[in-house]
Amino acid sequence: MTYETASIRIKKRNFPAQLQNMKIKLCLLFWGSFSLACSAQNDFSKLAKSYAHQSFEEFYELLSLANDAHFPEDIEKNVQWCEKAFAKRGFRTKRLSTQTVPLLLAEKKTSKPAKKTVLVYLQLDGQPVDSSRWFQESPWKPALKKQVKGKGWVEIPWKNLEGEFDPDWRIFARSTSDSKGAVMAFLKATDALKELKAEPNFNLKVIMDFEEELGSPHLPQAVKDYKEDLAADMLVIFDGPRHQSNQPTLTFGARGIATVTLTVFGPRFPQHSGHYGNYCPNPALRLSQLLASMKDGQGRVAIPGFYEGIVLDEETKEILAQVPDDEEAIKNKLGIAKSDAVAENLQEALQYPSLNIRGMRSGWVGEEVRTIIPATATAEIDVRLVLESDPQRLLSLIRQHVEKQGYLVLDRPPTSEERLSHDKICQFESEISYRAFRTEFDSEVGKWLIRAMRKAFSKEPVKKRTSGGSIPISPFVTTLNIPALTVPTVNPDNNQHSPNENIRLGNFVEAIQTILAILMEPL
Amino acid sequence: MTYETASIRIKKRNFPAQLQNMKIKLCLLFWGSFSLACSAQNDFSKLAKSYAHQSFEEFYELLSLANDAHFPEDIEKNVQWCEKAFAKRGFRTKRLSTQTVPLLLAEKKTSKPAKKTVLVYLQLDGQPVDSSRWFQESPWKPALKKQVKGKGWVEIPWKNLEGEFDPDWRIFARSTSDSKGAVMAFLKATDALKELKAEPNFNLKVIMDFEEELGSPHLPQAVKDYKEDLAADMLVIFDGPRHQSNQPTLTFGARGIATVTLTVFGPRFPQHSGHYGNYCPNPALRLSQLLASMKDGQGRVAIPGFYEGIVLDEETKEILAQVPDDEEAIKNKLGIAKSDAVAENLQEALQYPSLNIRGMRSGWVGEEVRTIIPATATAEIDVRLVLESDPQRLLSLIRQHVEKQGYLVLDRPPTSEERLSHDKICQFESEISYRAFRTEFDSEVGKWLIRAMRKAFSKEPVKKRTSGGSIPISPFVTTLNIPALTVPTVNPDNNQHSPNENIRLGNFVEAIQTILAILMEPL
Repeated sequence: MTYETASIRIKKRNFPAQLQNMKIKLCLLFWGSFSLACSAQNDFSKLAKSYAHQSFEEFYELLSLANDAHFPEDIEKNVQWCEKAFAKRGFRTKRLSTQTVPLLLAEKKTSKPAKKTVLVYLQLDGQPVDSSRWFQESPWKPALKKQVKGKGWVEIPWKNLEGEFDPDWRIFARSTSDSKGAVMAFLKATDALKELKAEPNFNLKVIMDFEEELGSPHLPQAVKDYKEDLAADMLVIFDGPRHQSNQPTLTFGARGIATVTLTVFGPRFPQHSGHYGNYCPNPALRLSQLLASMKDGQGRVAIPGFYEGIVLDEETKEILAQVPDDEEAIKNKLGIAKSDAVAENLQEALQYPSLNIRGMRSGWVGEEVRTIIPATATAEIDVRLVLESDPQRLLSLIRQHVEKQGYLVLDRPPTSEERLSHDKICQFESEISYRAFRTEFDSEVGKWLIRAMRKAFSKEPVKKRTSGGSIPISPFVTTLNIPALTVPTVNPDNNQHSPNENIRLGNFVEAIQTILAILMEPL
Repeated sequence: MTYETASIRIKKRNFPAQLQNMKIKLCLLFWGSFSLACSAQNDFSKLAKSYAHQSFEEFYELLSLANDAHFPEDIEKNVQWCEKAFAKRGFRTKRLSTQTVPLLLAEKKTSKPAKKTVLVYLQLDGQPVDSSRWFQESPWKPALKKQVKGKGWVEIPWKNLEGEFDPDWRIFARSTSDSKGAVMAFLKATDALKELKAEPNFNLKVIMDFEEELGSPHLPQAVKDYKEDLAADMLVIFDGPRHQSNQPTLTFGARGIATVTLTVFGPRFPQHSGHYGNYCPNPALRLSQLLASMKDGQGRVAIPGFYEGIVLDEETKEILAQVPDDEEAIKNKLGIAKSDAVAENLQEALQYPSLNIRGMRSGWVGEEVRTIIPATATAEIDVRLVLESDPQRLLSLIRQHVEKQGYLVLDRPPTSEERLSHDKICQFESEISYRAFRTEFDSEVGKWLIRAMRKAFSKEPVKKRTSGGSIPISPFVTTLNIPALTVPTVNPDNNQHSPNENIRLGNFVEAIQTILAILMEPL
């Protein structure tokens, strides 16, 4: 399939903006009817293609700005770019200062009688890059590519975007998908609205985060400091990839995340394993035994009470079953024969808190190996949180479990005296990073977005009850006391966080289509 | 205590070499008598002090040669230095070529009627250095230091060695203790012999290893290739530190070492722990469970048959009990409350094979931590071997144990098909590095060296049945079919393998004393 851009241009000549606007408005009148909805979808689709086409120069400019938040001087350029881009579109912008780089708030009141204010969350910074692993000049020099059988992704001239383009072509650059693509799509959707002389029937606030990839360390305080500025009725997050099937998706919640670092102590210093092997206790063994005691052979947490409070009733299971996961394909992709036995399928598994060893280290392996009894062994654990589990309770359960294994549990390394008086010593450090959130399907924001998505695509969106990953949204949900919903738009195979991140042009077009439908959907 | 070097000089003037020689010979005649043995010890001690004094210039020169075996051009300078030093002392030298740097053989036949040939093993290369962690100009620029209360080790001018010196002063440089100190002591002992016009009643062969710190990878083949050249009746190794008490020590054996690398496989690539936590099996957990299953809570190997064949009868236990270990001091030094329960004490623990996790890694920890389900988890294991355990049998037991835990055990990473058809997959790689050896206390070489040590120090040496560590001696023992014994001479607190390696001058003097007594002891 190739987008017939040329023909769209002809159409645009034939139907000036006002007319198109009227046509849309007419459609809106009849959106109750399925057949007309199809035609509306068709219009959204055509409009989106046209506006995608207009966006590539500006998108190139935005993607050319380095945006690793470890470098605040680079981030400043992104902030300035956003200030201009939003001001140009009639938004009033305000920097919300933090200890480091600011957040940016852009606000636009509707001229319609508005009862509601929608807060939109966008993210501008990107993961650090390892340029040597990118197959292009620079991660911050966008490259247009098409897939060629036997050759993989082959760069083609950027000016190809001036004419027809294939929805399967992709733009490769850092943050194309995570999440400058969504930012650009949002801006182009507002351009479309303007040309259509349409307006949302709600006020818009857009909060832009420039430290998301660092874990938004200053966001919770900023939300408190600027509570009045951010006040809204609901939060919509344009971030993340769609469901694996790449169908239009709504995500109603996300797991939170807490982390634990466990360090088990052996001898004061690494010891020669010959001189003391069989005599001096080995911390790697002890850590292994400690970790092994936390889960059973099927990957289920064996700490009593860990899953307490989570009940998946038949209705919930049915809702979860509607997500079109292909479990065989997932296992194939992961390269595993069998999944953990926590739940019956992936969507159900995501409704439970997890206990994952994300890193483990003692001594050295491979070429650096040394024949020692290591002095310490460390495990990094992440606990994905769900709404039903109080994170502090889960962390306490883990800590108590370690104590029950006979450990003196400290929040610092042991003193010499403690070493000589306690056989088993463990340092336990924990942190709650993000809390979980979840919005009901039949909430106001839920129903509104489902309506908009149906109109945009003439079909039911994939509705995910909870995404497995964690996003820094809980400060909004808890401090502002508003429900939140995520509208992911980009292709799932976008290499997010990795070299050769990309956005599929078809997804970029549909991102504009999605956001336009949402902004036009009455609330 | 200060060595009265000046007075020794006066004595030397008063008693020319021949006279001293006669005096020694006279003493030797009466060595059966304890009181005369004391006087002999006194003479050995004085002679050793005098020859230590003469050695410092040459020792400085030897220590100034960089000797990290990763740099063969540096090693060549050490080989040449040894060639000259041994030739000067009447040894015939021969390079035994290997794939990399050669071994050096130095040979000297006695003019006495000799029935036996003694092969001496010396080691010249040193561990890699991290100069930034040495408290002196360079690890290869020897520094003389004395300990000053509240200041630690303070450098004093090298020329202080021209006059009196304190036995507690130390020379700091790479390989002072491990093992150029022993090389220098051997050379000075032969100088003393020459001046005394004394001679061993056995032929001497000295084999010099320049790759010991790399694990002597070419030694086994070289011993086979040069079997005739190396032919001898017994092997004496001058290497390693004395017993912790720093008393004269003989070590009758050493544990061998085999290694195992275990890699457990999770997803094909690291996965986002949010997206797949609770679903995708975690290899760090599985490795932990696997390692935990290998030992009990007291550090004893739980694999049936692992300790088979080891019986410590009462006689052996008594012999082991004679080693003057201060277990409380050892635990204090290690910073542990309790030792593993494999045996009742350290010496007994060293009579058993060990299974030690020397390194363990999965994902990342600390600042590099990433919130993933790692793709693999690796454990590096070392198995210290004893004479009673066939290494191949021990390795098979471990491998079978892994299989019994439900693993597909491979000697390579799994294929895609294996991944999808087997839930638990482990790569198992093993290697037997050195075999164990042990010589009986009442063997010919044992009795001979015990006699010599008694005469040198007028007391019984500490007799260690087995050292815990491993040395590349088994090729000699097995290929040449001769017994071996280690004579360690340096201070146990010498920072061997670490920055600020040093030799205590008192130990250096006693090393000369030890070797001189051995060379003079009839066999």
